[in-house]
Amino acid sequence: MLIGAQTWEFKSKPVILGAATVVGPEEGQGPLSSDFDFVYDNLEIDEKTWEKAERKLLEHASSLALVHAGISKDQLQLFVGGDLMNQIISATFAARTIGAPYLGVFGACSTSMESLAVAAMVVDAGGAQYALAATASHNCTAEKQFRYPTEYGSQKPPTAQYTITGSGAAVVASSGSGPRITHATIGKIQDLGVKDPFNMGEAMAPAAADTLVAHFKDTGRTPEDYDLIVTGDLASVGHAIVSDLLKQDGVTMEKTAFSDCGLMIYDREKQPFVFAGGSGCGCSAVVTYGHILKRMKRGELNRVLIAATGALMSPLSYQQGESIPCIAHAVSIERGEN
Amino acid sequence: MLIGAQTWEFKSKPVILGAATVVGPEEGQGPLSSDFDFVYDNLEIDEKTWEKAERKLLEHASSLALVHAGISKDQLQLFVGGDLMNQIISATFAARTIGAPYLGVFGACSTSMESLAVAAMVVDAGGAQYALAATASHNCTAEKQFRYPTEYGSQKPPTAQYTITGSGAAVVASSGSGPRITHATIGKIQDLGVKDPFNMGEAMAPAAADTLVAHFKDTGRTPEDYDLIVTGDLASVGHAIVSDLLKQDGVTMEKTAFSDCGLMIYDREKQPFVFAGGSGCGCSAVVTYGHILKRMKRGELNRVLIAATGALMSPLSYQQGESIPCIAHAVSIERGEN
Repeated sequence: MLIGAQTWEFKSKPVILGAATVVGPEEGQGPLSSDFDFVYDNLEIDEKTWEKAERKLLEHASSLALVHAGISKDQLQLFVGGDLMNQIISATFAARTIGAPYLGVFGACSTSMESLAVAAMVVDAGGAQYALAATASHNCTAEKQFRYPTEYGSQKPPTAQYTITGSGAAVVASSGSGPRITHATIGKIQDLGVKDPFNMGEAMAPAAADTLVAHFKDTGRTPEDYDLIVTGDLASVGHAIVSDLLKQDGVTMEKTAFSDCGLMIYDREKQPFVFAGGSGCGCSAVVTYGHILKRMKRGELNRVLIAATGALMSPLSYQQGESIPCIAHAVSIERGEN
Repeated sequence: MLIGAQTWEFKSKPVILGAATVVGPEEGQGPLSSDFDFVYDNLEIDEKTWEKAERKLLEHASSLALVHAGISKDQLQLFVGGDLMNQIISATFAARTIGAPYLGVFGACSTSMESLAVAAMVVDAGGAQYALAATASHNCTAEKQFRYPTEYGSQKPPTAQYTITGSGAAVVASSGSGPRITHATIGKIQDLGVKDPFNMGEAMAPAAADTLVAHFKDTGRTPEDYDLIVTGDLASVGHAIVSDLLKQDGVTMEKTAFSDCGLMIYDREKQPFVFAGGSGCGCSAVVTYGHILKRMKRGELNRVLIAATGALMSPLSYQQGESIPCIAHAVSIERGEN
């Protein structure tokens, strides 16, 4: 099962039996709009607090994923979830609604692929027939917790990113039809000393490069073995850096479509308020479970690699002068029978 | 591997190859003092911030666990860790030092057994030969984040618990000598509407009862199959409630030693400042990896069940009037060759 230093190879190739994405109004105005299952027309998500809004996104995506998988809540044997909130309250309160055995995980914005990797590991090992992996983020809960309440109107530098509002959920199953999870490369912490939370792309780029290089080394694959490779939320600054870092490591992406979920989700010209691009737990989740899986279903992509990135600082660690430890987890998905 | 509804049975019975515990001065004055590997004589743990102190506990216990397991840091293929801090910074910064592939988990005080269960799952599935599970808590980081800075001198009700200062770490391996992990029962969220963070024992008791009942049902075992069953940190109030709840469910603990790590770690008569007893991520970790494993090694216990409990609220969810969702994860450990 472990191949090389840090990659799990799933012999049974667990199936993504059903997936779902719900997003807020700004993501609904972006270029991937038609790939999302539901677009809320208000940032409040019809709730009275931002926290309840984020939780509702997660519950909504999870329940839609179960519908798409054709299973009931009672058939779920595991829910692996997490989010950016202190004590991951969005996932936990959603877990109360979902009712399945629950493992809370935290990898900041890498939580999307961390939860998918753990769910796939458990299903592959026979620990569950059906496991749900889900995460969510909301622009306003993140701004309030990590930066400043939006109402303060604080200015931001162009390297800043915009936390997406949305949730992505996937039901991983031991059998059935759908895209198949073949490998997961579990990341190591990388910290090159970046301390600026308004430049997370630069902080996270080395983690993405490290995990991608490890993935190719462990599996013996090259970028050309993939039709599409995406990083999680490096956005414009970080994506340029990771391309350079990979080149230095002898990995050239020239013959492969190589992008970043944070660059794909918004139109930065028409939506300049996103600055360098999207971020947040939901970013790689909605792009993967919405856009990428739909492209696979249409036969446009056969094999993809998603390297979700996470900046694991807290407001307190930043205030105490610490640098930002970062991580990336990569999951390889192949087209299965539709 | 999955037996019943929510229990993983580990066919290979992963081994706890080495474990270690380090604690603060108050735990060092408690009845289990001689079972801990290192007792700091100052609550600052020789550091300048409480957060650095907590991280140091985790790094210290982890490095001692590697020594006890007889392996080097480079041989570790996975670190599964978490803690109570926002964005689990103690585990993440420790992961930077440890250097292994890292999965961050969050289950509040149940993180001890959540991390051990996930590590055992990965090792049993062949995803790692050596995996480290570790967690830590510090009284002052928890007081500062969840309640009030200690310096405020706020009064507390007798149902309040005292977050322990300490860390426990275990190296789980696919082969070798030591206690063996046979089962893990993954908990479901239980929330009966308790909203008082100064009465976490009452909030968490239903989760402990639910997981214990599920464990016995899934495995076909009874309490008499264990020499010792402990809950994580229900302390005096919660432990009385869980005993009642189990009786209502037809589970009688009369013939089995049944205790709670939060009751075992302090002498409440000599240490009245702990009120109802101990709590925190480190509580069940240091009692299990220190006291209980040492009793197993001495041949006093052959089979134990640890049901670590977690109260998954955040200060914000409490302020917004939400009740406290709780969970318990249970891990069954058998005496192996010494």
